[in-house]
Amino acid sequence: MEFKQKRLTNGLDVIGEINKSAKSAAVGFFVRTGSRDEAQQINGVSHFLEHMLFKGTEKLNAFEVNKAFDRTGAQFNAGTSEENTVFYAAVLPEYLIEVTRLWAHLMRPALRNEDFNIEKNVIKEEIAMYKDTPSFDVLDRCRRLHFDEHACGNSVLGAEESIDSLTVEQMRDYFARRYVPDNMMLACAGNFDWSRICLTLEEACLSWQGHAAARKLEHFGGSKKKERIEKTNLVCEHICLISPCVSAQDPRRFAASLFAVIVGDSVGSRFFWDLVDKALAEVATMQFSPMDGTGALVSLLRCSSKNVPKVRDIIGDIFHDLSKDGITEDELRKAKNKVLSALVIKNELPMGRLLDLGFNWIYLKQYYTIADDVKAVKAVTVDDVNSLIEQFKPGDFTQFSIGPARNE
Amino acid sequence: MEFKQKRLTNGLDVIGEINKSAKSAAVGFFVRTGSRDEAQQINGVSHFLEHMLFKGTEKLNAFEVNKAFDRTGAQFNAGTSEENTVFYAAVLPEYLIEVTRLWAHLMRPALRNEDFNIEKNVIKEEIAMYKDTPSFDVLDRCRRLHFDEHACGNSVLGAEESIDSLTVEQMRDYFARRYVPDNMMLACAGNFDWSRICLTLEEACLSWQGHAAARKLEHFGGSKKKERIEKTNLVCEHICLISPCVSAQDPRRFAASLFAVIVGDSVGSRFFWDLVDKALAEVATMQFSPMDGTGALVSLLRCSSKNVPKVRDIIGDIFHDLSKDGITEDELRKAKNKVLSALVIKNELPMGRLLDLGFNWIYLKQYYTIADDVKAVKAVTVDDVNSLIEQFKPGDFTQFSIGPARNE
Repeated sequence: MEFKQKRLTNGLDVIGEINKSAKSAAVGFFVRTGSRDEAQQINGVSHFLEHMLFKGTEKLNAFEVNKAFDRTGAQFNAGTSEENTVFYAAVLPEYLIEVTRLWAHLMRPALRNEDFNIEKNVIKEEIAMYKDTPSFDVLDRCRRLHFDEHACGNSVLGAEESIDSLTVEQMRDYFARRYVPDNMMLACAGNFDWSRICLTLEEACLSWQGHAAARKLEHFGGSKKKERIEKTNLVCEHICLISPCVSAQDPRRFAASLFAVIVGDSVGSRFFWDLVDKALAEVATMQFSPMDGTGALVSLLRCSSKNVPKVRDIIGDIFHDLSKDGITEDELRKAKNKVLSALVIKNELPMGRLLDLGFNWIYLKQYYTIADDVKAVKAVTVDDVNSLIEQFKPGDFTQFSIGPARNE
Repeated sequence: MEFKQKRLTNGLDVIGEINKSAKSAAVGFFVRTGSRDEAQQINGVSHFLEHMLFKGTEKLNAFEVNKAFDRTGAQFNAGTSEENTVFYAAVLPEYLIEVTRLWAHLMRPALRNEDFNIEKNVIKEEIAMYKDTPSFDVLDRCRRLHFDEHACGNSVLGAEESIDSLTVEQMRDYFARRYVPDNMMLACAGNFDWSRICLTLEEACLSWQGHAAARKLEHFGGSKKKERIEKTNLVCEHICLISPCVSAQDPRRFAASLFAVIVGDSVGSRFFWDLVDKALAEVATMQFSPMDGTGALVSLLRCSSKNVPKVRDIIGDIFHDLSKDGITEDELRKAKNKVLSALVIKNELPMGRLLDLGFNWIYLKQYYTIADDVKAVKAVTVDDVNSLIEQFKPGDFTQFSIGPARNE
């Protein structure tokens, strides 16, 4: 493994981890932009823009973009979150330059009126589908409630109204402000030739100009509000709980990951044994969501209406016990094994490695080897986790529920 | 990479491909049994039995099984198909022996009455969920129609009636006949110590005895029947097409895979350009399904009711053009790139490698390196694919449709 890094003269960061024994290579553009960077009236523009990048450039239409990916045999995709928009592909090493050149070309899209108008309907259908899926809807609503007025609570897909009123000029303006070299980076992982990657990007990206506006970074304590809405067609109760936690930059992020596994991994966690194994809830999971300058613990539960009071009591007991007695050595040991095997297995594939490599650079401007991360996970102590519990009080959460009408 | 192979004295095959540069290891038991090995009255027993293996042994209950996996941090799962039942796990190398010993122990389950009765309801819920999902239901019904009376058309989940009437004694009998050493094998991939794996299996598995009844192997031409049923709650038409193809043992399987990609890959295929890109169908894919002694090409389509006649005509045109003019050099080149990158990327991870390694052994009793498979894909010619079209006539298919009532 060899790490390489270069900043082009226009500010675009390029990084790569070369693994000569890999049989494939992965490449991705990471754009530091997402729904938290959107004003309310353009909410959803980051995700919509991600779709538009596949509609082509001045030189290629959507048909030709498709054909161009096809030629490389790439496994490719893109994704938008609250904070990042990522475009990535995995290919055989001999196609890496071709697919990198293609991505670089697509990063300067035509954003044609007619494509924009057609794609708007696709986005609206996606919003409708999410609204109809209570497990997504409850998460979106709980984030909004937890982050109150702050942009961290913005929905990634946006609202039907904001998408409806969005103009292509607003999107072009957003693009011009956010897809600038010092707000983007390119990462490579696997088996590739570093100097050829650098040459390719200098040819393709050096004309990009502009500087990004800074993102507001503050830590949020969360609203701790509780709300519930009813939907007549539902059978189950869907519950989301969010409490504040450490940020993506915080060294305690490893302890926070382990805490979430101990409390809410899909098997073998406290939620699992007390709720799922007892058949009181069908789903009960917790995830640590590290963000730029802030962080959250997000729990999702699904149970039958009649079990809601019992589930509520048991969740109360679990958090009460944690704040009173903390976690145990045995729990921490098991959680470390799970986190370490997931970490190592994910990073073994260039595609998985790319994402960790890129996000470490986006959030920390640092290169960490897999061994560095393994060491950091192993070093976490019971006291580290218990201090997090003491400081962040995970039992003191924002709660949103969606369920059927109650017969009370 | 180093390949190892050993047959224990009771007939259990053990194989492994050692990759000292891998960071993880994967292990799996492959049982050569599935729904095609079931008589009608016990249809679904293979899949039900797969569930029961997690309920424990004489020494461990379900709770303890869960705890035991937990300790290793394993990413583990199991799956049942028409022909195979596979139990697998990926772990850090230091936990491979522990998880292998655990799987070996679970391969001799207690099959307790009370567990059987509780799990029966879980299976029935799974069947109900599948029946409610038209894209699964149409595939199950089309397989039955295509394979006519033959066991290859058996549903993996079984029917509600066969599960209802199934007794634990019938399951124990099926287990005793099918989970015998010469009908099972163990495979390992990644970073592991071959001699320790062999020692572990000799300790854990040498007491297993018995011989499996042979499986009936015949090639099926398929019924070529056409059927349609209506469901009042549906909005879309769901269509499944099945035509015969080469078997998992046939050297032409690589040409068949490439043909399916050319006709029905999810992007860039003939189906994609003529149906999906034209917005006539939302889904239009074809997959090659190689089986023991036979094989099939399986296409799945979803479209609005009003587009059914147009979709039918275009499918007719696509197969007509293929039988008249065959595929092109350009199509084959692109399909090879896709198949090769998917093959190499999948096999890069020990977990993915395990499955190819195991299935090559199950079907061919052969070890093929990734390089062997890459070479075989590269060697396929336009003539190879066109000969398959000529022999198997993919336009002459069995068809099952599920859709809303027609207003005619």
